[in-house]
Amino acid sequence: MPSGEFEFIRWVRDRTNTDPRVLVGPGDDCAALAPSPRPLLITTDVLTDGVDFHLPQVGGRTVGRKAMAANVSDVAAMAGSPTAAVVGVVLPNASNSRQLAEELYAGLREVADEFHFPIVGGDTNTWSGGLVVSVTLLGEATGRGPVMRSGARPGDWVFVTGPCGGSILGRHQSPKPRVREALALHAAVELHAMIDVSDGLAADLGHILEESRCGAVIDAESVPIHPDAIVLSKTTGKQPLEHALGDGEDFELIFTVSPTDGERLLHERLVPGVAKIGECVEAGLWLVENGVRRPLIPTGWVHPVG
Amino acid sequence: MPSGEFEFIRWVRDRTNTDPRVLVGPGDDCAALAPSPRPLLITTDVLTDGVDFHLPQVGGRTVGRKAMAANVSDVAAMAGSPTAAVVGVVLPNASNSRQLAEELYAGLREVADEFHFPIVGGDTNTWSGGLVVSVTLLGEATGRGPVMRSGARPGDWVFVTGPCGGSILGRHQSPKPRVREALALHAAVELHAMIDVSDGLAADLGHILEESRCGAVIDAESVPIHPDAIVLSKTTGKQPLEHALGDGEDFELIFTVSPTDGERLLHERLVPGVAKIGECVEAGLWLVENGVRRPLIPTGWVHPVG
Repeated sequence: MPSGEFEFIRWVRDRTNTDPRVLVGPGDDCAALAPSPRPLLITTDVLTDGVDFHLPQVGGRTVGRKAMAANVSDVAAMAGSPTAAVVGVVLPNASNSRQLAEELYAGLREVADEFHFPIVGGDTNTWSGGLVVSVTLLGEATGRGPVMRSGARPGDWVFVTGPCGGSILGRHQSPKPRVREALALHAAVELHAMIDVSDGLAADLGHILEESRCGAVIDAESVPIHPDAIVLSKTTGKQPLEHALGDGEDFELIFTVSPTDGERLLHERLVPGVAKIGECVEAGLWLVENGVRRPLIPTGWVHPVG
Repeated sequence: MPSGEFEFIRWVRDRTNTDPRVLVGPGDDCAALAPSPRPLLITTDVLTDGVDFHLPQVGGRTVGRKAMAANVSDVAAMAGSPTAAVVGVVLPNASNSRQLAEELYAGLREVADEFHFPIVGGDTNTWSGGLVVSVTLLGEATGRGPVMRSGARPGDWVFVTGPCGGSILGRHQSPKPRVREALALHAAVELHAMIDVSDGLAADLGHILEESRCGAVIDAESVPIHPDAIVLSKTTGKQPLEHALGDGEDFELIFTVSPTDGERLLHERLVPGVAKIGECVEAGLWLVENGVRRPLIPTGWVHPVG
């Protein structure tokens, strides 16, 4: 970390000096963290104004929340717990840049506090361009190890942790990472593969299938549809199912388990809210609707007419 | 990490799949690394076009090298070894953005290869703004623990690992992080405090003194002056010593040790190239030149006239 410190980093420092996991805080060249015997997870996301958010519409706090939550969701997708974050910020040269930094930090901090991890350092710059927020999050896997995308196999049941679709009506700006759900699932059953819904339910399931070299059949009637998808469908002309399968940034988790574990999840209600949406097969990605099986295009899926 | 992958990340993946420290590569939501019993170091730097570099003048490869090396230097300053990096890149929308990504990656990779650590993941975006490169580097401390800025005490001898000044003539674009020197010093003596020269020799020594709540007296005749400082002085009208004390981005290390360890460093030549430049005192930052002691302003220091 650069030694030229902005207030942003000083605030961080005041907050993290008391965290027992932090051996050296962000006032030094690096932060130092106590070692852990568990595999270390690391993920990074860079969000830019005009692409990932529109600053004038949403404000700094929402940008901060979203930037941190997107990374927490990636750690959840590996069935891990977030442990520490660093934040890089490039602020536009403007008279209100200090206020923007404060709002950003408030949003970042809210998510970090919710999931009980410190922000241990960062780098703040200003320039003539737009706002850029880069978050790198560390996490640790459980004793069972990280859950990857590559472990799905034909015969697995495919689940999702909650209803999808229509997140653009507002939920995409304040994602709810499914850390607790992932840990509860990982403790209850053997998770074969997992991913969070960032590109869309069909697209992200497609990523699991690509890494696992298998296919899946999705049952249209079983896909949990978020009320936002129904509201949105009235203005888009698409069916709610299209939104549930195609919309991104839901941050629910898709996972696959053996049929035996799947039965247990459903009948013993081990983790509330999870829904079985289909099963893995040898190849392809398919949607069964009204008894008819059609290819499901992972990205840009359009509902068949008629 | 986002599941939408750019070639940049695919290349990373091809390279890191063979590294035994990488349990899960960047094709998944997070990378997973084997745990280490040593304290974990983490640092991050964000570099922006027009502020930290001028892309048309230096090209992507130099930007990549500089972005990675600046972080490696931060790990060196804690007497640590770099272990893994993630990279966030925001590319300008342009016809040559793929070529720029390749050049950047080549530069980042060169430094990672030189110091034997993998790039385990990242995030690549494009937008209408300028180039932004964000690097987060992990490292591990030695068994003796990380060296902080806060351990200097009155009576300590102050050292620097090599000559400073004039880095703007070119050395600032390809910094040589002093990882090996730091590890050799840490093994040979008890380092009380250490920092890398990013803001300038006087300014960064000032950071040590601030954290350590003590002062220092620098001996003007002992400061090793880089030949670039002499060249530069001919066009700036400043004295070479001013450049050695005031110029940033040298990436040498400043450190303090007990007089006993200082004597050993000098007489047993434990680590070649290190130079004693002064001693710690109770308070203040002072320069002794021709027997006269004057206050040394850490930032924006101007040589006294006459």
